Amino acid sequence: MSVMKIEPRTLKGFRDFLPKEARKRQYVLETLKRVFESYGFEPLETPALEYEEILAGKYGTEGDKLMYKFTDNGDRKVALRYDQTVPLARVVAQYQNDLPIPFKRYQMQNVWRAENTQKGRYREFLQVDADVVGVYSPLADAEIISVVITSLEKLNFKNFKIVINDRANFADIDPQAVLTIDKLKKIGKEGVLKELEEKGLPTSSLDVVLNKELNDKLREISGILNDKSVIFDPALARGLDYYTGLIFEVEIEGYEVGSIAGGGRYDNLIGMFAGRDIPAVGFAFGFDRLIEAMEVLNLFPSDLYTTKVMLAFANSELQEKAVKIANEIRNNNINTEVYPEDVNLEKQLKYADKKQIPYVVIVNENNLVLKNMTEREQEELTLEQILEKFK
Amino acid sequence: MSVMKIEPRTLKGFRDFLPKEARKRQYVLETLKRVFESYGFEPLETPALEYEEILAGKYGTEGDKLMYKFTDNGDRKVALRYDQTVPLARVVAQYQNDLPIPFKRYQMQNVWRAENTQKGRYREFLQVDADVVGVYSPLADAEIISVVITSLEKLNFKNFKIVINDRANFADIDPQAVLTIDKLKKIGKEGVLKELEEKGLPTSSLDVVLNKELNDKLREISGILNDKSVIFDPALARGLDYYTGLIFEVEIEGYEVGSIAGGGRYDNLIGMFAGRDIPAVGFAFGFDRLIEAMEVLNLFPSDLYTTKVMLAFANSELQEKAVKIANEIRNNNINTEVYPEDVNLEKQLKYADKKQIPYVVIVNENNLVLKNMTEREQEELTLEQILEKFK
Repeated sequence: MSVMKIEPRTLKGFRDFLPKEARKRQYVLETLKRVFESYGFEPLETPALEYEEILAGKYGTEGDKLMYKFTDNGDRKVALRYDQTVPLARVVAQYQNDLPIPFKRYQMQNVWRAENTQKGRYREFLQVDADVVGVYSPLADAEIISVVITSLEKLNFKNFKIVINDRANFADIDPQAVLTIDKLKKIGKEGVLKELEEKGLPTSSLDVVLNKELNDKLREISGILNDKSVIFDPALARGLDYYTGLIFEVEIEGYEVGSIAGGGRYDNLIGMFAGRDIPAVGFAFGFDRLIEAMEVLNLFPSDLYTTKVMLAFANSELQEKAVKIANEIRNNNINTEVYPEDVNLEKQLKYADKKQIPYVVIVNENNLVLKNMTEREQEELTLEQILEKFK
Repeated sequence: MSVMKIEPRTLKGFRDFLPKEARKRQYVLETLKRVFESYGFEPLETPALEYEEILAGKYGTEGDKLMYKFTDNGDRKVALRYDQTVPLARVVAQYQNDLPIPFKRYQMQNVWRAENTQKGRYREFLQVDADVVGVYSPLADAEIISVVITSLEKLNFKNFKIVINDRANFADIDPQAVLTIDKLKKIGKEGVLKELEEKGLPTSSLDVVLNKELNDKLREISGILNDKSVIFDPALARGLDYYTGLIFEVEIEGYEVGSIAGGGRYDNLIGMFAGRDIPAVGFAFGFDRLIEAMEVLNLFPSDLYTTKVMLAFANSELQEKAVKIANEIRNNNINTEVYPEDVNLEKQLKYADKKQIPYVVIVNENNLVLKNMTEREQEELTLEQILEKFK
């Protein structure tokens, strides 16, 4: 490989995640995985590249435009994963006999969309989905909402609402009016009425919608959940998406940018490759918004560092001793590193500081010194005492 | 979205990972992450797509041919990630001031190569790398091998060797002869001598290589490691790769397909974008081989299922009760699901069987029955007794 003068840079809308950010993402993903699995959801992975015909036409004209498409070396028309729902539909058709039905799967993979990046949108971003495929029951609807509530709780969110509605409530409303009424929270009652008028639609449809009550299905779902964070909102529509029954969105107090999660029932979609209707209910976290909301609300644990202790050595003769002590500390399930080069102590401590390692053990000829890097205190201790301290 | 008659299929060389396989992969990745972090390595993620100029020419003529390249909607020439070393080199140059040096990072992301798939090769596969960037010290070399040994131990491998050598040992040997001698284990001494003759190279070079002894650097590395699984092999060359010092490979007893991990020191590569030499030492697991070796040697834990208990209900009146009991069991950190639809008990139990859920709690009008699905035994118990049993 030759050394060239090429500017090191990333494509617009694509991101590197350096350790500090990557660790936060991992923390959230691991928390969500544990919650999803605690409800019996299982992991699924699908390829980044699919035959274009599998994805084409599934996301509307706009989607087709935003999709990353190309012809591969074997002259196949291929496309990069655009969401996780169409691949799920393919999987359900392709492995009909192998999958348990109901099929409860979660999926956490990147998708690619050639979006306009001006609005803080990314062209590569992580999707986090969980769905129950194969049942019409409100029990599954309730379970999906329950998974969302537990996820939020485990991520330490305190004040949130799960706003629910039923798509059936819009059955007799003009779709264009639905889009306007969906904006009620953003533009207020006056705004909605004005926009309905401008569109030449009956302003009465707002009242028709707002007078809807919890129907039997929503009542059953709410009953199973029995959770005061679940609120009925007859104006919630979730755009013109493919939902057929329950719809819901998560609202976080203190983070008004938008919903960090949403979902619902969609009974006409997953069967697209199987050639028959297959019911499904699920949700997706907006992963970037979720991370942003956690930043804003200060919900990340302060001890998300990787290394707890670094071994430093006063001189090169003590390197091997430092490695041995590091091994002993590490064997006690404490993340431990040794500064990996023979440099002076000051440089070693600078590294620990930059990496935000909270403790350093300095290996001297005749003793060990434990340095608390946050409080800038230090004391001479035996290895046993150090291990005791970390218990 | 319209329902079309399109065959549900994946591209050649691309794989779906259904839950059973996905869980195994997750188990291995989580184990490796814990080990890497226990040594102070930190996660790094880079984009799937890079400017083509960043990747082009970095992997030789063959690599350029196998790379997935295309022109995006904005007329940029882009390419899919081909390995994790060139992106690491870009990151090191791009964020020079933000990264601690030594920079110890691990990376676990997919790469894409349009390989000939006949040899069981895939076009999308996971790479697992860990590297120490920025130091020349044998301490870092030893640490890298130590991480590999601990990883293998934590994955329950028992009989393995870390075969080591120094690239310097081949300094005076014709590169073509090196390639032949590297095959010693595969084709034997006779085979090597024959191939050297055919190539018109001096057969004496084999003896020259085999007579090499542990040099000072390897001696220091071995000394720090002090581990009997580390074996010197003067014939190990690792092809014509970019290594400049220590090289090593992992051999697993009982899995002779090939090495499941390898690495070494490469001091002329990471600086390619920074415009100066930056030393580095690291390794990669061949993830698919690692999984295969673990299958062959039966190293996966038997309890890699997601759900431990499923709640079944004798009739629809008992659904809500089942949900409540499931919540209580789940609150004790036991993965618990409820069959999410009103069907007969037989169908519920069939699902638990297909999903290999080890325990089912049947909710009857007046009691709870715990069914052990593997031993086909059942007993009437209170919820307290059930929770006690799972402790």
